Amino acid sequence: MLTRQIIDRIVRTALDEDAPWGDVTSELFVPAEATASARLVAREPGVFSGAEVLVRTMNAVDERIVVDILVEDGTAFEAGHTLARLEGPARGILRGERVALNLVQRMSGIATLTSRYVALVAGTDARIVDTRKTTPGLRALERHAVVCGGGHNHRNSLSDAVMAKDNHLAVLTASGISVTDAIRAVRRRLGHTTHLEVEVDRLDQIEPVLEGGVDTIMLDNFTLDELRQGVAQVNGRALVEASGNVSLDTVAAIAATGVDVISVGALTHSVRSLDLGLDVDIEPVAAAEHAGRSARG
Amino acid sequence: MLTRQIIDRIVRTALDEDAPWGDVTSELFVPAEATASARLVAREPGVFSGAEVLVRTMNAVDERIVVDILVEDGTAFEAGHTLARLEGPARGILRGERVALNLVQRMSGIATLTSRYVALVAGTDARIVDTRKTTPGLRALERHAVVCGGGHNHRNSLSDAVMAKDNHLAVLTASGISVTDAIRAVRRRLGHTTHLEVEVDRLDQIEPVLEGGVDTIMLDNFTLDELRQGVAQVNGRALVEASGNVSLDTVAAIAATGVDVISVGALTHSVRSLDLGLDVDIEPVAAAEHAGRSARG
Amino acid sequence: MLTRQIIDRIVRTALDEDAPWGDVTSELFVPAEATASARLVAREPGVFSGAEVLVRTMNAVDERIVVDILVEDGTAFEAGHTLARLEGPARGILRGERVALNLVQRMSGIATLTSRYVALVAGTDARIVDTRKTTPGLRALERHAVVCGGGHNHRNSLSDAVMAKDNHLAVLTASGISVTDAIRAVRRRLGHTTHLEVEVDRLDQIEPVLEGGVDTIMLDNFTLDELRQGVAQVNGRALVEASGNVSLDTVAAIAATGVDVISVGALTHSVRSLDLGLDVDIEPVAAAEHAGRSARG
Amino acid sequence: MLTRQIIDRIVRTALDEDAPWGDVTSELFVPAEATASARLVAREPGVFSGAEVLVRTMNAVDERIVVDILVEDGTAFEAGHTLARLEGPARGILRGERVALNLVQRMSGIATLTSRYVALVAGTDARIVDTRKTTPGLRALERHAVVCGGGHNHRNSLSDAVMAKDNHLAVLTASGISVTDAIRAVRRRLGHTTHLEVEVDRLDQIEPVLEGGVDTIMLDNFTLDELRQGVAQVNGRALVEASGNVSLDTVAAIAATGVDVISVGALTHSVRSLDLGLDVDIEPVAAAEHAGRSARG
Amino acid sequence: MLTRQIIDRIVRTALDEDAPWGDVTSELFVPAEATASARLVAREPGVFSGAEVLVRTMNAVDERIVVDILVEDGTAFEAGHTLARLEGPARGILRGERVALNLVQRMSGIATLTSRYVALVAGTDARIVDTRKTTPGLRALERHAVVCGGGHNHRNSLSDAVMAKDNHLAVLTASGISVTDAIRAVRRRLGHTTHLEVEVDRLDQIEPVLEGGVDTIMLDNFTLDELRQGVAQVNGRALVEASGNVSLDTVAAIAATGVDVISVGALTHSVRSLDLGLDVDIEPVAAAEHAGRSARG
Amino acid sequence: MLTRQIIDRIVRTALDEDAPWGDVTSELFVPAEATASARLVAREPGVFSGAEVLVRTMNAVDERIVVDILVEDGTAFEAGHTLARLEGPARGILRGERVALNLVQRMSGIATLTSRYVALVAGTDARIVDTRKTTPGLRALERHAVVCGGGHNHRNSLSDAVMAKDNHLAVLTASGISVTDAIRAVRRRLGHTTHLEVEVDRLDQIEPVLEGGVDTIMLDNFTLDELRQGVAQVNGRALVEASGNVSLDTVAAIAATGVDVISVGALTHSVRSLDLGLDVDIEPVAAAEHAGRSARG
Repeated sequence: MLTRQIIDRIVRTALDEDAPWGDVTSELFVPAEATASARLVAREPGVFSGAEVLVRTMNAVDERIVVDILVEDGTAFEAGHTLARLEGPARGILRGERVALNLVQRMSGIATLTSRYVALVAGTDARIVDTRKTTPGLRALERHAVVCGGGHNHRNSLSDAVMAKDNHLAVLTASGISVTDAIRAVRRRLGHTTHLEVEVDRLDQIEPVLEGGVDTIMLDNFTLDELRQGVAQVNGRALVEASGNVSLDTVAAIAATGVDVISVGALTHSVRSLDLGLDVDIEPVAAAEHAGRSARG
Repeated sequence: MLTRQIIDRIVRTALDEDAPWGDVTSELFVPAEATASARLVAREPGVFSGAEVLVRTMNAVDERIVVDILVEDGTAFEAGHTLARLEGPARGILRGERVALNLVQRMSGIATLTSRYVALVAGTDARIVDTRKTTPGLRALERHAVVCGGGHNHRNSLSDAVMAKDNHLAVLTASGISVTDAIRAVRRRLGHTTHLEVEVDRLDQIEPVLEGGVDTIMLDNFTLDELRQGVAQVNGRALVEASGNVSLDTVAAIAATGVDVISVGALTHSVRSLDLGLDVDIEPVAAAEHAGRSARG
Repeated sequence: MLTRQIIDRIVRTALDEDAPWGDVTSELFVPAEATASARLVAREPGVFSGAEVLVRTMNAVDERIVVDILVEDGTAFEAGHTLARLEGPARGILRGERVALNLVQRMSGIATLTSRYVALVAGTDARIVDTRKTTPGLRALERHAVVCGGGHNHRNSLSDAVMAKDNHLAVLTASGISVTDAIRAVRRRLGHTTHLEVEVDRLDQIEPVLEGGVDTIMLDNFTLDELRQGVAQVNGRALVEASGNVSLDTVAAIAATGVDVISVGALTHSVRSLDLGLDVDIEPVAAAEHAGRSARG
Repeated sequence: MLTRQIIDRIVRTALDEDAPWGDVTSELFVPAEATASARLVAREPGVFSGAEVLVRTMNAVDERIVVDILVEDGTAFEAGHTLARLEGPARGILRGERVALNLVQRMSGIATLTSRYVALVAGTDARIVDTRKTTPGLRALERHAVVCGGGHNHRNSLSDAVMAKDNHLAVLTASGISVTDAIRAVRRRLGHTTHLEVEVDRLDQIEPVLEGGVDTIMLDNFTLDELRQGVAQVNGRALVEASGNVSLDTVAAIAATGVDVISVGALTHSVRSLDLGLDVDIEPVAAAEHAGRSARG
Repeated sequence: MLTRQIIDRIVRTALDEDAPWGDVTSELFVPAEATASARLVAREPGVFSGAEVLVRTMNAVDERIVVDILVEDGTAFEAGHTLARLEGPARGILRGERVALNLVQRMSGIATLTSRYVALVAGTDARIVDTRKTTPGLRALERHAVVCGGGHNHRNSLSDAVMAKDNHLAVLTASGISVTDAIRAVRRRLGHTTHLEVEVDRLDQIEPVLEGGVDTIMLDNFTLDELRQGVAQVNGRALVEASGNVSLDTVAAIAATGVDVISVGALTHSVRSLDLGLDVDIEPVAAAEHAGRSARG
Repeated sequence: MLTRQIIDRIVRTALDEDAPWGDVTSELFVPAEATASARLVAREPGVFSGAEVLVRTMNAVDERIVVDILVEDGTAFEAGHTLARLEGPARGILRGERVALNLVQRMSGIATLTSRYVALVAGTDARIVDTRKTTPGLRALERHAVVCGGGHNHRNSLSDAVMAKDNHLAVLTASGISVTDAIRAVRRRLGHTTHLEVEVDRLDQIEPVLEGGVDTIMLDNFTLDELRQGVAQVNGRALVEASGNVSLDTVAAIAATGVDVISVGALTHSVRSLDLGLDVDIEPVAAAEHAGRSARG
C-alpha cells in the first residue's frame, strides 16, 4: 500500500516546506564532516507505524544516513523502548529529525488509537475501518497506520467504490424513479469490480435498498436497538456498516449488535501524535579541524 | 501568508488523492446538469479559518461554483451558525465537499484551540506562538489558522531563523570554544536579518548565552519559579520564550512569569477537527431530462 | 471519471512535448492577430469520444478559442459529419491541432472498436470490459472511451481490486496452505469494498476457489465448451469473467456461453486511430497590417 | 535520444497510474521477502525496442531488481526467444510487469512495423520517417522505436523545423505576397539551423516554392506518376518527401519514384503491440516464515 | 516561441522562490482592499522585451491586476519613457514587482545589447545569433529577447541540430575513419530536418569537412584574415559561422569578412540588467476602514 | 543553504532545457561505451563557487561520472588552475558540460565580484550583502556564491523579514497614523523572529522610525555626509544599512562612514560569468568496436 513513489512525494514536500534554504542552525554550529548517532525512543506506550517513512526521509536528506529499524510496523511497545537507531552525517540527521518525527508520531498515534478500538471489538465479527476524513496529502500514510493498528481500510477514494447517501438517492427519486430501480440502474452501469454501498437513515429504507442489490448497507446514526433490528432485517443479504457516534465508549456495544463493519472518522480526523523523540549524539570533532572547516559550511 | 500558489498546490494534491478517477457515485446518481446549493454550518462553536481554502477548493473542482463567505477568517461563531453558502453544479460541490471540510475543519480546529490559549494569557505581555510540529505539507495553512485564533507564528522553517539547542552548542564547546564565543562567531557569519535564538535547560546557562548576544533565549522545561528567575536574569536583554509542558491548564501561570513568548506544540501536532458540516440540497431535475442525459454521464 | 485535473495533466504534457518552444511555422507565417475557424470532421464512420479533451486542449493553448461541440461523447456518426466547430486565434488553433487530434482520434478509435464488440454481444447478459493493457499515461482517457463505446471498465489499477493469478496462488499453496484457505485468509485482511477476483486455468480449480469465497472468477483461455461448463459449475455463486482469445470473430460465441463479463485487451493495446480531420480556415488579414505586425510576431 | 530524464518521467507517471496505492493482490498473496525470477519472452517474431525502459521501470519499483538484457534494441528475434531475464523481490517484479510490458510491447510493435517498411524500400535511396502522429506523452519512446526498426525521425516537434502547409502559405498570399517572396521572407527571419520544409499539393506549386529556397519539399498525396514528375522537376534542388497514402502495399512503388523521404503516420498512430510476455517464477517461501511475515506485509 | 506554458512555469518558480509564504511587509502595512496604480518606467534608453512576462507575472499573483502594455517587444525607447501601466490590488502589485522586474530588466538588457551588435553589422549579410550560454531555466526568455533586439537564434538545444567540435571528430578519426567519411556516415543516420554544423580551428580543415557535406561550417577563433580566406574557400557551399573573440569592438570587422552568421556568447552569459523601475502609487484608504480590516490581513 | 533538493531541481530543469531529446551530436559521433576524462580549468583568476552543483549535474546525467573537486567553494585561484577532474562515460560528460559551466561560471563570477567588494571594505565593520535582484529560479545558488565570495546574505525572500519602504509607510500615514505608531503596531503583529527593517530617504525620517523600534534602518541613496550623520543619529539603536549607488568605486568610502551593512544589487543582477572551461579528452575506441556499436547508438 505504501509505495516508494507515495512516500517519496510526501517526504520531498515536507522537506521543502521545513527547510527550503537549508538548516541555518546546523550549518552554522555543526561542521559538515561531523557525524552523529541517534535513537528513536518511545516516550509513551503505543503501536509503531512509519518505519519506511523514517528510512526514506533520512535518505532523502542524505543517503549516507543508515537507519536500523528495531521494531516493525504494527508492533506494540512500552515507554522507553528504542524503536530505531540512526548513524550518519550530523547535519543530515538534524535536518530530517522534525519531518521524520512529524510523520512517524502521527502515524503511530493513529496506529495506537486504532489498536484500542480493535481491542474493544475483539471477539465479535466487526472490523474497525477508517473513512475519507484523512489529512489531505497524507491519506496513504494514515490508512497504512490504521492497518498497523489492526484496523481495515474503507474505499481508497471517491473513485473506487460507490457510497450513495440520502441526497444521491433523492436526486433519482425526485425524478420519479424508485430507490430500488435507481440502484438497479446504477448497478448495470457500474464496473463489476466496484463495490456498491448505500447509506440509510431509517429502518424502513433498508428493504428497498436491499432489493436494488447492494454489497454493503450503511446504517447511519442508528441507536443500538435499531442496529440490532437492522442486522436482523438485512440477514446476510449485504454487509452491514455502522457509522456515526462511534467512540471508545460506544464501540464495543455497537460491535455486539452484529454489524460487520464499524467506520470511525476519529481514527484520522483528530489525531494526537504519539510522543516519540529522537535522541541525537553528535560525535565530537577536533577543534582545529572544526575551526578550519566550518568556516565555509 | 496564504498565497494562491500555496493553497492551490495543497488543494490539487488533495483532490487528486480523494478522486483520482472522479467521483463514481455522483457520476452515476447525479446528472451532469444538476445544480445544488449548500451551506457550511457550524455544529459546535469556534473560530473560523479557511475561507480562501474553501473558495479555491470548490473552484478547482468546477469554476462555476460560487462561494459566498459569510464569516471572515478569525471570527468567532456559535453552533448552528452558517459560515458560507455555495451554489453551482451538484457534482462539483459533492466532489469538493470532503476535501474542503477536511481542510477547513482542521484549520478552524487550530484557530479555535489557539483562541483558548490566547484568552488565557490576556492581560499579560506573553504571546502564544506555534512550532514546527505542523502537519507535513500543510504548514502554511496551519500557521495561518494560528494567526486567525489570535496567536503568532514562530519561524517559518529551518531556513529563516537560528534556533540552537543543547546539542548544537555541545558541538562547539566540545571543540574547546566557550558558548559565548561560539554564539559571537555564529552572529558574525549570520545574515543580519536572521533571528538568533538559543535554548537553555538551566538558569546558569543564561548568562553566557546572553553575553554571546542573542535575540531570543528559550527556557526549555523550566518550572514556574525558574521561569520567573530567568526573566529577571535576562532583564530585557533578549526576548524570553517559554517552552515545554504548556497546556490549557498551565499557560496562564506561565504567562504570569513575565515571559514574552510561549510556544505551544499542541496547537498543531494534535488537532481535533472542528465539527463543521456541509448541508447540500440538490435541485430536482425533470425525470425525462435526467434519464436521457445521465446515460452518458 | 474524466476530471479536469486528469485531462489537464495529459494535455499539458502533450503540448510541452509537441511544442516546447512554440510553433515556429505559425509564428513565421501567421500574424499574431489572425483568427481562424475550423471544423472537426469525420473522415470515416465511428463513435465519438473526447469532446472535453478537445475543449481543454484548445483552451490550454489559448483561452480565447471557442469550441462548440456538435456531437456528444458516445454518439455514433457517419463519414463527413462535422463533430465540432472552433473559432479563435489562428496560431492557437494550429498549435493545438495535432495534440487534440492525436488524443481524440485515439479515443474515438477505442470507442468505435468497443461499440463493435458491444453490438456483437447484444441480447446476451455479457458485458465487454477493458483491461490494464492501456497506453501508459492515458488510462483515464482510454477507459472513458470504452464507456463511450458502450463497454464497461474493469478495475482502475492494481490498487482497487484483487486479481489473483496462478502464480499468486502458487506462492501460498507452495507453503502448504490450500487454495480455499488462502482465499479465506486474504478476504479477512482485505478491505470490505475491495473486489476479490481469482483467475483459473482449468475447470477443476473452480470449486476450491468458490469455496474460498470470491466475487468474480476468471476463466482464462477456456474453450467455448469449457466456458459453458464453468458457467454451469459456478451457478451464480460468483460473477464469471471470460478472458483470452477474444476477438471480433469469437466474442459472440463467448457471450453465448452465459459468462457475465468478457475482458478484451485489444480494446486499448492495439488501437487504430479513427480518421478525423481538422479543416482550418484562416481569415485573411490585410497585407499592410500583416507586414507591419508579423515582423515581431 | 532517450535520456534518463525522459524515461523516468514516463515510467513514474505510468507506475502512479497503474498502482497509486500499491498492488493489493501481491501485498496479500506474496510475502514481502519472496524473490522471483522472470523471463521476457517473445510470443511472436519482431524487432526489439525498449531495453532501457524495462530496466528503469523495474528499478523505479525496486532498485534491487536485476535486469539482464539479452537482446539489444534494434535486434530482430524469433518467437520463443528470451529477450531479458529478471531477478529480485517478487512483489516488485509483479508490480512493474504490466507497465513494463505496456511500454516495451508498444515500442517493439513500432520497431517491428518500421522494419517491414524499411525492408520494402531496401535498394532505393528513400528513408522511412515518422510523423507527429505519436502517442501524447510517449513521443520520445516511439521515435526511438522507429530508429530501432531502421527508420529515421522527422522533426522532434513544432519547435525545431518549419513545415508550411497550404493554409500557412494561403495567409501570406491572401495578403498579396507571392509564395516565393513569402518563403524568402521567412528564411530571413528563421534561425539558420532550422530546417525549412514546404508542402505542396500540385506539381505547379513546386517551382515557386523552390525559388523561395527550401530544404525539403513535401509532395502530399501525389500519384506515383506525379511523384516521378515532381522528383524530376526538383532535380536535387531540395530533398523530396512523399506523404499520404503510404502503406505496406504502396511503399515500395513510392520509393521507386526516387523520393528521398517517405513519412508514414501509421508507424505510430495505429500501433499493434507486439506479443511479448513475462514468465514469472516466484521462489517458494517456507510456510512458517510466510505465515509469520505476511501478516503485516 | 514564448508559449504560455513556458512563461507560466518560469513565473511560478520565481514567485515561489521570492515569496514562499507571502509578502509579510505588504500584509502588515497594506490593507487587503487597497488598490494601486503603477508605471513601468525606463531609467535609461534601451530596447524592450518581456511584455507578456510582465502580464503573466502580475496575473499569476492576482488575476485582477490589469496590465496595459504601451510599448511592444522589440521597440526602442528613451530614458523616462513609460513602458506599461498597471492597476489593481496593491498587495498583488507589490508582491509581483521584484519578480517582474528581475525578468523584464534582464530580457530588455539582452535585447538592448543585441541591438547594439545588430546595428554594428548593418549593411552586411551577417546575422547576430545567440549561443547555448544562456541562464539555466530562462533560455526561452533570453532567446526571445535576442530576437527582440534584432538578432537571430542558434539551435534550441543539443537535441535539434548537430554541432560537431574537434573532439567529436577526433573520436572517429582516432578509429581510422577520415573526417569526410565520418561526416557522410553521420548524415546518413541523421534526421533529414536536423542541421549539420561542424566547427573547425584551421583553414586546412575546411575542405574535408565540406566534402563530407555540412550545412554550416563554424570557423572558431579565426583571425580576420583567416575568416576572409575561409569565406572564400567555402564559397557558398555551406553557411559560414564566425565564433570566438566577438565583442562590440570587433563585430563590425568580423561581419565585413563576409561570414553569414556571428555567434555571440556575451549576449546572454554576462548580461547587465537594464535599469527599469516600477513607480507604484497606493490609493489612500480611509483610516477607520483600514484599522478595522487590516487587523486580519 | 544549498540542499540536494534545491540543486537537483535546478539541474533537472536545466538539463531538460538543454537536451530535451538527448544530445544528437554525441549520439552520432561518440560511441555509447567511450569514456572521457576532463579538467575544469580557470581561464582567468577568481573565487570558486559551485563544486556541489558540478557534481550533481554530472551525476544527474550519468551516475557513473566521477567528479573530483580539487578546490573548495570559496577558494581563490589563478588563471590556469585546475579546479576539478572528471572521469566517466564520454557522452555523459559532453551532455552535462554546458549546463555545468553555465551554472558554475555564473556562481564563480558572483563569488569573484563579491570578493572584490569585500576586499574593499576590509578593516571596517561593514558587511557586503546581496539583494532580491537575483536571477529568477537561481536565488539559492547565487546567494551561496555571495557567501563564497565573503559576503553575507540579506533576507531569503519576501516571507522572512519585513522591509518597509516609503510607499508602505505612506499607506498608513495617509490614514492618519504616525510612522512611529505604524511601526509599533506592525511589531505587535509580527512574528518575534521576523526582522523589521525600514527604509528612509531623508535624515529627518530616522527619528520617528527608531522610536517605532526597528532592527535595521536602511538609508537609501544617501550621500556620504548624510550617511555619516545618519550613523551618528542612529547611534547603535539599530543596524544601519546603506543602499543605492554602491559600486566598486564608492564602496570603500561608504564603508568608512560606519554603516553596518552595504547592500549591492550588482552582485547578482548584472553578473559577468567567470571564464572557466572544461577540457575534455575522449579515450580512443578501437575502430571495429566503434563501427559495430555506434550503429545503434
